[in-house]
Amino acid sequence: MLPESLRRVVQMFARLPGVGEKTAQRFALQLMNDAALASDLSRELAALVESVRPCERCGNIAEVDAAGVAVCDVCLDTRRDGRLLCVVARVQDLLAIERSGAMRGRYFVLGRLLSPLDGIGPEELPLATLEAKLAADGVEEVILATPPSVDGEATALLLGRELSRRGLKVSRIASGVPHGGDLEFADQITLGRAIEGRRTVGGSD
Amino acid sequence: MLPESLRRVVQMFARLPGVGEKTAQRFALQLMNDAALASDLSRELAALVESVRPCERCGNIAEVDAAGVAVCDVCLDTRRDGRLLCVVARVQDLLAIERSGAMRGRYFVLGRLLSPLDGIGPEELPLATLEAKLAADGVEEVILATPPSVDGEATALLLGRELSRRGLKVSRIASGVPHGGDLEFADQITLGRAIEGRRTVGGSD
Repeated sequence: MLPESLRRVVQMFARLPGVGEKTAQRFALQLMNDAALASDLSRELAALVESVRPCERCGNIAEVDAAGVAVCDVCLDTRRDGRLLCVVARVQDLLAIERSGAMRGRYFVLGRLLSPLDGIGPEELPLATLEAKLAADGVEEVILATPPSVDGEATALLLGRELSRRGLKVSRIASGVPHGGDLEFADQITLGRAIEGRRTVGGSD
Repeated sequence: MLPESLRRVVQMFARLPGVGEKTAQRFALQLMNDAALASDLSRELAALVESVRPCERCGNIAEVDAAGVAVCDVCLDTRRDGRLLCVVARVQDLLAIERSGAMRGRYFVLGRLLSPLDGIGPEELPLATLEAKLAADGVEEVILATPPSVDGEATALLLGRELSRRGLKVSRIASGVPHGGDLEFADQITLGRAIEGRRTVGGSD
Protein backbone atom coordinates (compact mmCIF):
# COMPACT_ATOMS: atom_id res chain seq x y z
CA MET A 1 0.00 0.00 0.00
CA LEU A 2 2.96 2.38 0.65
CA PRO A 3 4.99 3.65 -2.32
CA GLU A 4 8.25 1.77 -2.86
CA SER A 5 10.51 4.68 -1.85
CA LEU A 6 8.64 5.17 1.41
CA ARG A 7 8.76 1.43 2.12
CA ARG A 8 12.54 1.38 1.68
CA VAL A 9 12.97 4.22 4.18
CA VAL A 10 10.69 2.36 6.64
CA GLN A 11 12.82 -0.79 6.31
CA MET A 12 16.02 1.16 7.02
CA PHE A 13 14.61 2.93 10.06
CA ALA A 14 13.47 -0.47 11.36
CA ARG A 15 17.14 -1.50 11.51
CA LEU A 16 17.89 1.16 14.15
CA PRO A 17 18.03 -0.14 17.75
CA GLY A 18 14.63 -0.42 19.44
CA VAL A 19 12.68 0.66 16.33
CA GLY A 20 9.90 -1.64 15.12
CA GLU A 21 7.85 -1.54 11.93
CA LYS A 22 5.19 0.84 13.31
CA THR A 23 7.68 3.33 14.73
CA ALA A 24 9.73 3.23 11.52
CA GLN A 25 6.55 4.02 9.57
CA ARG A 26 5.81 6.95 11.87
CA PHE A 27 9.31 8.33 11.26
CA ALA A 28 8.97 7.96 7.48
CA LEU A 29 5.52 9.64 7.41
CA GLN A 30 6.84 12.50 9.55
CA LEU A 31 9.68 13.00 7.05
CA MET A 32 7.22 12.88 4.15
CA ASN A 33 5.40 15.77 5.82
CA ASP A 34 8.62 17.66 6.60
CA ALA A 35 10.70 17.63 3.43
CA ALA A 36 13.16 20.16 4.91
CA LEU A 37 14.02 17.80 7.78
CA ALA A 38 14.29 14.85 5.36
CA SER A 39 16.73 16.78 3.13
CA ASP A 40 18.78 17.99 6.10
CA LEU A 41 18.99 14.50 7.56
CA SER A 42 19.98 13.04 4.17
CA ARG A 43 22.79 15.60 3.82
CA GLU A 44 24.04 15.24 7.40
CA LEU A 45 24.11 11.45 7.25
CA ALA A 46 26.26 11.65 4.11
CA ALA A 47 28.57 14.09 5.95
CA LEU A 48 28.67 11.80 8.99
CA VAL A 49 29.90 8.86 6.93
CA GLU A 50 32.71 11.04 5.56
CA SER A 51 33.79 12.67 8.80
CA VAL A 52 33.19 10.31 11.73
CA ARG A 53 34.12 6.65 12.24
CA PRO A 54 34.87 4.32 15.17
CA CYS A 55 38.46 4.89 16.42
CA GLU A 56 40.77 2.34 14.82
CA ARG A 57 42.50 1.70 18.11
CA CYS A 58 39.67 1.58 20.64
CA GLY A 59 36.24 1.90 18.97
CA ASN A 60 35.43 5.31 20.50
CA ILE A 61 33.96 8.05 18.26
CA ALA A 62 36.74 9.52 16.10
CA GLU A 63 36.89 12.27 13.49
CA VAL A 64 38.53 11.24 10.23
CA ASP A 65 41.71 13.31 9.71
CA ALA A 66 43.15 14.69 6.44
CA ALA A 67 44.96 11.40 5.78
CA GLY A 68 41.68 9.44 6.14
CA VAL A 69 42.71 7.97 9.51
CA ALA A 70 40.31 7.84 12.48
CA VAL A 71 41.93 7.92 15.92
CA CYS A 72 39.95 9.36 18.84
CA ASP A 73 40.90 12.19 21.22
CA VAL A 74 41.42 9.79 24.13
CA CYS A 75 43.88 7.61 22.19
CA LEU A 76 45.71 10.71 20.94
CA ASP A 77 45.88 12.34 24.40
CA THR A 78 49.45 11.74 25.65
CA ARG A 79 48.55 12.87 29.19
CA ARG A 80 46.38 9.77 29.58
CA ASP A 81 47.93 6.86 31.45
CA GLY A 82 48.31 4.21 28.75
CA ARG A 83 49.08 1.54 31.35
CA LEU A 84 45.46 1.64 32.56
CA LEU A 85 42.74 0.37 30.17
CA CYS A 86 38.99 0.39 30.76
CA VAL A 87 36.97 -2.14 28.69
CA VAL A 88 33.34 -1.14 27.98
CA ALA A 89 30.52 -2.65 25.92
CA ARG A 90 29.33 0.48 24.09
CA VAL A 91 30.46 4.00 23.21
CA GLN A 92 27.60 5.32 25.39
CA ASP A 93 29.19 3.62 28.42
CA LEU A 94 32.56 5.24 27.59
CA LEU A 95 30.87 8.65 27.42
CA ALA A 96 29.18 8.05 30.79
CA ILE A 97 32.49 7.11 32.47
CA GLU A 98 34.20 10.15 30.90
CA ARG A 99 31.46 12.38 32.33
CA SER A 100 32.18 10.93 35.79
CA GLY A 101 35.81 12.04 35.49
CA ALA A 102 36.88 8.88 37.36
CA MET A 103 39.05 7.40 34.60
CA ARG A 104 42.58 8.64 33.87
CA GLY A 105 43.54 5.80 31.48
CA ARG A 106 42.29 4.85 28.04
CA TYR A 107 39.36 2.72 26.81
CA PHE A 108 38.48 -0.22 24.63
CA VAL A 109 34.95 -0.53 23.21
CA LEU A 110 33.90 -4.15 22.60
CA GLY A 111 30.82 -3.19 20.56
CA ARG A 112 29.10 -6.41 21.67
CA LEU A 113 28.90 -8.82 24.58
CA LEU A 114 28.96 -12.60 24.75
CA SER A 115 25.40 -13.76 24.21
CA PRO A 116 24.82 -17.49 23.67
CA LEU A 117 21.12 -16.84 23.00
CA ASP A 118 21.98 -14.51 20.08
CA GLY A 119 24.77 -16.82 18.89
CA ILE A 120 27.55 -14.43 19.92
CA GLY A 121 30.53 -16.46 21.16
CA PRO A 122 34.13 -15.48 22.05
CA GLU A 123 35.18 -15.48 18.38
CA GLU A 124 32.67 -12.68 17.69
CA LEU A 125 34.43 -10.35 20.18
CA PRO A 126 37.15 -8.03 18.78
CA LEU A 127 39.91 -9.74 20.76
CA ALA A 128 42.62 -9.20 18.11
CA THR A 129 42.08 -5.43 18.20
CA LEU A 130 42.14 -5.56 22.00
CA GLU A 131 45.51 -7.41 21.85
CA ALA A 132 46.90 -4.68 19.59
CA LYS A 133 45.75 -1.99 22.02
CA LEU A 134 47.31 -3.82 25.00
CA ALA A 135 50.64 -4.04 23.19
CA ALA A 136 50.65 -0.53 21.71
CA ASP A 137 49.84 1.23 24.99
CA GLY A 138 51.91 -1.07 27.23
CA VAL A 139 48.81 -1.80 29.34
CA GLU A 140 49.46 -3.18 32.85
CA GLU A 141 46.01 -2.92 34.42
CA VAL A 142 42.54 -3.54 32.96
CA ILE A 143 39.21 -2.44 34.45
CA LEU A 144 36.29 -4.49 33.13
CA ALA A 145 33.35 -2.07 32.92
CA THR A 146 30.86 -4.22 31.01
CA PRO A 147 27.34 -3.86 32.45
CA PRO A 148 26.25 -5.94 35.48
CA SER A 149 23.87 -8.04 33.34
CA VAL A 150 24.05 -11.75 32.47
CA ASP A 151 25.84 -11.05 29.17
CA GLY A 152 28.04 -8.37 30.74
CA GLU A 153 29.15 -10.68 33.58
CA ALA A 154 29.84 -13.57 31.17
CA THR A 155 32.00 -11.28 29.02
CA ALA A 156 33.86 -9.96 32.09
CA LEU A 157 34.48 -13.54 33.25
CA LEU A 158 35.96 -14.54 29.88
CA LEU A 159 38.13 -11.42 29.57
CA GLY A 160 39.21 -11.63 33.20
CA ARG A 161 40.47 -15.16 32.68
CA GLU A 162 42.25 -14.40 29.39
CA LEU A 163 43.90 -11.19 30.58
CA SER A 164 45.00 -12.48 34.04
CA ARG A 165 46.72 -15.36 32.25
CA ARG A 166 49.02 -12.79 30.60
CA GLY A 167 50.03 -11.34 33.94
CA LEU A 168 47.84 -8.23 33.69
CA LYS A 169 46.18 -6.84 36.81
CA VAL A 170 42.42 -7.16 36.12
CA SER A 171 39.52 -5.70 38.13
CA ARG A 172 35.75 -5.51 37.73
CA ILE A 173 33.72 -2.36 38.48
CA ALA A 174 31.72 -2.52 41.74
CA SER A 175 28.07 -3.48 41.62
CA GLY A 176 25.72 -2.48 44.48
CA VAL A 177 23.05 -0.03 45.58
CA PRO A 178 23.42 3.14 43.44
CA HIS A 179 24.16 6.53 45.02
CA GLY A 180 20.86 8.00 46.24
CA GLY A 181 19.19 4.61 45.86
CA ASP A 182 16.77 3.17 48.37
CA LEU A 183 17.61 -0.22 49.92
CA GLU A 184 13.90 -0.93 50.30
CA PHE A 185 13.42 -0.87 46.53
CA ALA A 186 16.71 -2.50 45.47
CA ASP A 187 16.36 -5.96 43.93
CA GLN A 188 17.74 -9.09 45.60
CA ILE A 189 20.72 -9.50 43.27
CA THR A 190 21.82 -5.88 43.73
CA LEU A 191 21.55 -6.16 47.53
CA GLY A 192 23.38 -9.49 47.45
CA ARG A 193 26.20 -7.88 45.49
CA ALA A 194 26.28 -4.83 47.75
CA ILE A 195 26.83 -7.08 50.78
CA GLU A 196 29.25 -9.41 49.02
CA GLY A 197 31.31 -6.44 47.80
CA ARG A 198 31.36 -4.65 51.19
CA ARG A 199 34.48 -2.69 52.12
CA THR A 200 36.13 -2.29 55.51
CA VAL A 201 35.66 1.17 57.04
CA GLY A 202 36.76 2.98 60.23
CA GLY A 203 40.48 2.12 60.06
CA SER A 204 39.99 -1.55 61.04
CA ASP A 205 41.92 -2.41 57.86
CA MET B 1 32.05 15.91 23.74
CA LEU B 2 30.53 14.56 20.48
CA PRO B 3 31.96 15.75 17.15
CA GLU B 4 29.90 18.49 15.50
CA SER B 5 28.68 16.32 12.61
CA LEU B 6 27.47 13.62 14.99
CA ARG B 7 25.74 16.22 17.16
CA ARG B 8 23.84 17.63 14.18
CA VAL B 9 22.54 14.14 13.29
CA VAL B 10 21.47 13.64 16.92
CA GLN B 11 19.53 16.93 16.88
CA MET B 12 17.71 15.95 13.70
CA PHE B 13 16.75 12.50 14.96
CA ALA B 14 15.45 14.15 18.14
CA ARG B 15 12.86 15.97 15.97
CA LEU B 16 11.21 12.68 14.99
CA PRO B 17 8.03 11.80 16.94
CA GLY B 18 8.68 10.14 20.32
CA VAL B 19 12.49 10.37 20.01
CA GLY B 20 14.38 12.01 22.88
CA GLU B 21 18.04 13.06 23.17
CA LYS B 22 19.25 9.64 24.42
CA THR B 23 17.42 7.64 21.74
CA ALA B 24 18.62 10.04 19.04
CA GLN B 25 22.19 9.54 20.26
CA ARG B 26 21.75 5.77 20.13
CA PHE B 27 20.55 6.03 16.51
CA ALA B 28 23.50 8.24 15.54
CA LEU B 29 26.07 5.94 17.20
CA GLN B 30 24.54 2.92 15.48
CA LEU B 31 24.89 4.70 12.13
CA MET B 32 28.50 5.64 12.95
CA ASN B 33 29.17 1.91 13.40
CA ASP B 34 27.23 0.95 10.25
CA ALA B 35 28.40 3.30 7.48
CA ALA B 36 26.59 1.23 4.84
CA LEU B 37 23.22 1.79 6.55
CA ALA B 38 24.00 5.51 7.02
CA SER B 39 24.83 5.90 3.30
CA ASP B 40 21.75 3.95 2.23
CA LEU B 41 19.49 5.98 4.50
CA SER B 42 21.02 9.24 3.24
CA ARG B 43 20.39 8.26 -0.38
CA GLU B 44 16.85 6.96 0.24
CA LEU B 45 15.80 10.06 2.16
CA ALA B 46 16.96 12.22 -0.75
CA ALA B 47 14.94 9.98 -3.10
CA LEU B 48 11.91 10.19 -0.79
CA VAL B 49 11.87 13.99 -0.93
CA GLU B 50 11.89 13.83 -4.74
CA SER B 51 9.30 11.10 -5.21
CA VAL B 52 6.76 11.23 -2.37
CA ARG B 53 4.71 14.12 -0.92
CA PRO B 54 1.40 14.59 0.86
CA CYS B 55 -1.47 14.54 -1.67
CA GLU B 56 -2.37 18.09 -2.67
CA ARG B 57 -6.08 17.34 -2.40
CA CYS B 58 -6.35 15.25 0.76
CA GLY B 59 -2.98 14.88 2.57
CA ASN B 60 -2.64 11.12 1.92
CA ILE B 61 0.70 9.72 0.71
CA ALA B 62 1.15 10.54 -2.98
CA GLU B 63 3.83 9.82 -5.54
CA VAL B 64 5.02 12.87 -7.45
CA ASP B 65 4.17 12.45 -11.16
CA ALA B 66 6.20 13.52 -14.20
CA ALA B 67 4.68 17.02 -14.06
CA GLY B 68 5.73 17.42 -10.40
CA VAL B 69 2.16 17.07 -9.14
CA ALA B 70 1.29 14.87 -6.14
CA VAL B 71 -2.24 13.44 -6.12
CA CYS B 72 -2.87 10.15 -4.31
CA ASP B 73 -4.37 6.92 -5.64
CA VAL B 74 -7.59 7.40 -3.66
CA CYS B 75 -8.21 10.89 -5.06
CA LEU B 76 -7.41 9.65 -8.60
CA ASP B 77 -9.66 6.56 -8.31
CA THR B 78 -12.85 7.42 -10.20
CA ARG B 79 -14.66 4.35 -8.80
CA ARG B 80 -14.63 5.95 -5.35
CA ASP B 81 -17.79 7.72 -4.26
CA GLY B 82 -16.75 11.36 -4.11
CA ARG B 83 -19.96 12.30 -2.29
CA LEU B 84 -18.73 10.52 0.84
CA LEU B 85 -15.71 11.99 2.67
CA CYS B 86 -13.95 10.56 5.73
CA VAL B 87 -11.96 13.07 7.83
CA VAL B 88 -9.00 11.59 9.77
CA ALA B 89 -6.24 13.05 11.93
CA ARG B 90 -3.22 11.23 10.47
CA VAL B 91 -2.19 9.24 7.39
CA GLN B 92 -1.78 6.18 9.66
CA ASP B 93 -5.51 6.37 10.51
CA LEU B 94 -6.38 6.52 6.80
CA LEU B 95 -4.23 3.42 6.17
CA ALA B 96 -5.98 1.59 9.04
CA ILE B 97 -9.45 2.40 7.66
CA GLU B 98 -8.38 1.35 4.15
CA ARG B 99 -7.22 -1.99 5.57
CA SER B 100 -10.68 -2.49 7.12
CA GLY B 101 -12.23 -2.13 3.64
CA ALA B 102 -15.20 -0.32 5.22
CA MET B 103 -14.82 2.99 3.34
CA ARG B 104 -15.97 3.43 -0.24
CA GLY B 105 -15.56 7.22 -0.35
CA ARG B 106 -12.51 9.48 -0.20
CA TYR B 107 -10.51 10.93 2.70
CA PHE B 108 -9.21 14.17 4.13
CA VAL B 109 -6.16 14.13 6.43
CA LEU B 110 -6.16 17.02 8.93
CA GLY B 111 -2.54 16.45 9.99
CA ARG B 112 -3.32 17.89 13.43
CA LEU B 113 -6.13 18.18 15.99
CA LEU B 114 -7.41 21.09 18.01
CA SER B 115 -5.26 21.26 21.12
CA PRO B 116 -5.61 24.33 23.33
CA LEU B 117 -2.74 23.09 25.56
CA ASP B 118 -0.36 23.08 22.57
CA GLY B 119 -1.77 26.36 21.25
CA ILE B 120 -3.48 24.74 18.25
CA GLY B 121 -6.75 26.53 17.56
CA PRO B 122 -9.24 26.35 14.66
CA GLU B 123 -7.07 28.64 12.49
CA GLU B 124 -4.27 26.04 12.60
CA LEU B 125 -6.49 23.40 10.97
CA PRO B 126 -6.34 23.10 7.12
CA LEU B 127 -9.96 24.20 6.71
CA ALA B 128 -9.38 26.00 3.38
CA THR B 129 -8.00 22.81 1.80
CA LEU B 130 -10.95 20.88 3.24
CA GLU B 131 -13.35 23.40 1.63
CA ALA B 132 -11.65 22.89 -1.72
CA LYS B 133 -12.02 19.11 -1.40
CA LEU B 134 -15.73 19.42 -0.47
CA ALA B 135 -16.38 21.57 -3.54
CA ALA B 136 -14.23 19.58 -6.00
CA ASP B 137 -15.72 16.18 -5.12
CA GLY B 138 -19.30 17.41 -4.59
CA VAL B 139 -19.29 15.95 -1.07
CA GLU B 140 -22.73 15.33 0.48
CA GLU B 141 -21.84 13.27 3.55
CA VAL B 142 -18.89 13.54 5.96
CA ILE B 143 -17.73 10.87 8.45
CA LEU B 144 -15.62 12.34 11.27
CA ALA B 145 -13.02 9.66 12.12
CA THR B 146 -10.77 11.67 14.44
CA PRO B 147 -9.68 9.57 17.44
CA PRO B 148 -11.96 9.26 20.52
CA SER B 149 -9.57 11.38 22.63
CA VAL B 150 -10.11 14.84 24.16
CA ASP B 151 -8.46 16.59 21.19
CA GLY B 152 -10.13 14.27 18.67
CA GLU B 153 -13.60 14.89 20.16
CA ALA B 154 -13.03 18.67 20.27
CA THR B 155 -12.01 18.65 16.61
CA ALA B 156 -15.02 16.49 15.65
CA LEU B 157 -17.31 18.90 17.54
CA LEU B 158 -15.94 21.93 15.69
CA LEU B 159 -16.05 20.26 12.26
CA GLY B 160 -19.49 18.78 12.93
CA ARG B 161 -20.89 22.25 13.67
CA GLU B 162 -19.22 23.92 10.68
CA LEU B 163 -20.13 21.24 8.15
CA SER B 164 -23.76 20.73 9.30
CA ARG B 165 -24.27 24.45 8.90
CA ARG B 166 -23.59 24.00 5.14
CA GLY B 167 -26.29 21.37 4.85
CA LEU B 168 -23.90 18.40 4.76
CA LYS B 169 -24.87 15.14 6.45
CA VAL B 170 -22.27 14.65 9.18
CA SER B 171 -21.64 11.57 11.36
CA ARG B 172 -19.08 10.51 13.94
CA ILE B 173 -17.52 7.01 14.08
CA ALA B 174 -18.85 4.81 16.90
CA SER B 175 -16.92 4.54 20.15
CA GLY B 176 -17.38 1.55 22.45
CA VAL B 177 -15.95 -1.78 23.57
CA PRO B 178 -13.63 -3.04 20.77
CA HIS B 179 -14.23 -6.35 18.97
CA GLY B 180 -12.85 -9.16 21.16
CA GLY B 181 -12.55 -6.73 24.07
CA ASP B 182 -13.43 -7.68 27.63
CA LEU B 183 -16.09 -5.58 29.40
CA GLU B 184 -14.43 -6.29 32.74
CA PHE B 185 -11.29 -4.47 31.65
CA ALA B 186 -12.90 -1.66 29.63
CA ASP B 187 -12.52 1.80 31.18
CA GLN B 188 -15.52 3.80 32.44
CA ILE B 189 -15.64 6.24 29.55
CA THR B 190 -15.54 3.44 26.95
CA LEU B 191 -18.36 1.56 28.74
CA GLY B 192 -20.35 4.77 29.10
CA ARG B 193 -20.04 5.37 25.36
CA ALA B 194 -20.90 1.77 24.53
CA ILE B 195 -24.19 2.10 26.47
CA GLU B 196 -24.97 5.59 25.23
CA GLY B 197 -24.37 4.49 21.60
CA ARG B 198 -26.41 1.29 21.88
CA ARG B 199 -28.40 0.13 18.83
CA THR B 200 -31.78 -1.52 18.63
CA VAL B 201 -31.68 -5.20 17.70
CA GLY B 202 -34.21 -7.98 17.11
CA GLY B 203 -36.51 -6.12 14.74
CA SER B 204 -38.04 -3.89 17.48
CA ASP B 205 -37.07 -0.94 15.23
